[in-house]
Amino acid sequence: MTQAVLDQDLFARPGGRLDISTPALVLDLAALEANIAAMTAWAKAQGIALRPHAKTHKCAAIGRLQMEQGALGLCCAKLSEAEALADAGLDRFLLSSPVIGARKIARLVTLAGRCAELLVVVDDAANTRDLAAAAPERGLDILIDVDIGQDRTGVVDAESALALAEIIAAAPNLRFKGLQGYAGQVQHIADFAERRRASQASLAQLAAIRDRLAAAGHDCAIMTGAGTGTHAIDPAEGVLNELQVGSYIVSDVEYDAVDLTGDGKRAFSSGLFVYSRVISACHPGFVTIDAGSKSLAMDGPAPVVAFGAPEGTTYTCVGDEFGRLTLPPGSPPLKPGDLVGLVVPHCDPTINTFDQYHCIRGDELVELWPIEARGCSA
Amino acid sequence: MTQAVLDQDLFARPGGRLDISTPALVLDLAALEANIAAMTAWAKAQGIALRPHAKTHKCAAIGRLQMEQGALGLCCAKLSEAEALADAGLDRFLLSSPVIGARKIARLVTLAGRCAELLVVVDDAANTRDLAAAAPERGLDILIDVDIGQDRTGVVDAESALALAEIIAAAPNLRFKGLQGYAGQVQHIADFAERRRASQASLAQLAAIRDRLAAAGHDCAIMTGAGTGTHAIDPAEGVLNELQVGSYIVSDVEYDAVDLTGDGKRAFSSGLFVYSRVISACHPGFVTIDAGSKSLAMDGPAPVVAFGAPEGTTYTCVGDEFGRLTLPPGSPPLKPGDLVGLVVPHCDPTINTFDQYHCIRGDELVELWPIEARGCSA
Repeated sequence: MTQAVLDQDLFARPGGRLDISTPALVLDLAALEANIAAMTAWAKAQGIALRPHAKTHKCAAIGRLQMEQGALGLCCAKLSEAEALADAGLDRFLLSSPVIGARKIARLVTLAGRCAELLVVVDDAANTRDLAAAAPERGLDILIDVDIGQDRTGVVDAESALALAEIIAAAPNLRFKGLQGYAGQVQHIADFAERRRASQASLAQLAAIRDRLAAAGHDCAIMTGAGTGTHAIDPAEGVLNELQVGSYIVSDVEYDAVDLTGDGKRAFSSGLFVYSRVISACHPGFVTIDAGSKSLAMDGPAPVVAFGAPEGTTYTCVGDEFGRLTLPPGSPPLKPGDLVGLVVPHCDPTINTFDQYHCIRGDELVELWPIEARGCSA
Repeated sequence: MTQAVLDQDLFARPGGRLDISTPALVLDLAALEANIAAMTAWAKAQGIALRPHAKTHKCAAIGRLQMEQGALGLCCAKLSEAEALADAGLDRFLLSSPVIGARKIARLVTLAGRCAELLVVVDDAANTRDLAAAAPERGLDILIDVDIGQDRTGVVDAESALALAEIIAAAPNLRFKGLQGYAGQVQHIADFAERRRASQASLAQLAAIRDRLAAAGHDCAIMTGAGTGTHAIDPAEGVLNELQVGSYIVSDVEYDAVDLTGDGKRAFSSGLFVYSRVISACHPGFVTIDAGSKSLAMDGPAPVVAFGAPEGTTYTCVGDEFGRLTLPPGSPPLKPGDLVGLVVPHCDPTINTFDQYHCIRGDELVELWPIEARGCSA
């Protein structure tokens, strides 16, 4: 019994979105399109390319929209994520974390054989040698991942980068393409000036390694990194030539709290909601709704009510399947069946709990888009 | 590209579990079977029935094991969860939260038509009347949900329960079967004596409402509630005649911290692990592994290392796809590719991020069990 079957009678019916079986992940196509257009226009004006991160949406339909707007390709966090999107017809990927071990490397080689472009990052000498040993005659394209302050993946100094570049240069079937540096620790700093200072410091580390490699004869054609949080900052620094933006497509409560462009204005529209309904209203002052931690990521801020409950209503998770909406004093009561729309708190892991997007245009449910790479973390 | 395809060469190969593509959800069948047997034996000795909660495992194969051991049926938190398990061949369910609105009630009636038993809870007069209006001639079996301190769903006083019992009694196609009272707020109180006092207080509320209904001629044949946290406490109180235990099948870090039986011993074995691998080791003192918040629920305690890293190693989530293992001072270093097993932190929402269990017996990968009701929250 898929959600597609449950809601098939609602398509293209006026007001159909209001009858969606809840909880559901609802994508506002107009907002999605506007956000993609805004980022595309910004990148074009800045003369920088986009390689959006598919780990956010995990969806071929959204990836295709990004490619149609001129994206170079899609980033994927994991091999199986790219495999799932390749199965759905996409064929240009950057794997933004290392692919380790003989079994995964064999899959990587298979995937490369059916892609127009496949880039993979390395930060370890043994892994780089494993890739060299397994690479097909047509070659594998390699980026060196540089840790620019996140303490997660990537080499931490120029000597390590140089050592990897030399292994790559010596391997007949590996091609050195450049550097990846992602300052994940910077993206959610709320204040624009503070975020800019932090990003500048991170990018300076990346530039120093680029220069050291260039001096040794290893040119970095690709300089890739950044995220939605620094998209308006990094192009001016002249270090990156492409942006790995992800969350801009729909934004979320977490990014809504970040002054992305330094003018205090929202750069991107809220495009993604969890629709939920009141299922119990036995207490004064609060009601229980049908969306808990299995439908809303609980690793960040709480979701925010977009419609269906008075301003000032707050959400508390009260179980895997339940949330509590605490209403402001004096609010008219909500009753079982009442629909509420919640702005997703942290988009990536929230999306990863659903199998499809319910796509709306205005008041109508118009499409269901499968989330092909949901759960593909391996 | 499903995980089944990725790992098909590993089945029944000695040591096969060590080559599983990570991150993966790994179920130790011997532990699962021992835990089910232990709970079955306990319930039998106490003269109480089991109606285990399927929201934990969401898996028909596990549900069948529970039914084969004498469970009355399975609890489901949501309608679509029961629909998915019915599609997989199971046919006795208790829906433990209210089913609201005409569209869901129509699905409920359809589901009832293909079940040997379907019980549904109510806590609202309008919803009860909606059920009465939609119920088929063969009838619907109804429980009144009582809030015994969790502040989530359920009526809060005897008057409300009585009003619902009267609506049910007056409806020709509804049958009143009894009460559900789940003290979710009690289950994770670590200290046994404190938990017992809290559970006794909750059950006393439930008993008072049962008595009030009985005095008005409404007999409660079914008195259902409890969880793994109070399974060793509640039978002696004589209020419940069945237990809705869930997490006992595999336990988790959250329940491992609870003194379930009052003797300080572990009542249930760790049966569920996320296997993960080191993918980056560029820093002294810590490494990055391939399991983050898309593979491990982050609403409770951190996962605990079961094998593959020294005692005293701690896990920190550093992104949707990444975790950090901080090693105790002086530990031998881990390198990319090294396998670690993590005891799942909170089993229910962790399971809900995966599409299947990798089932192991000893050192071998022996089966893949689909998680049919994954993501079925609607």
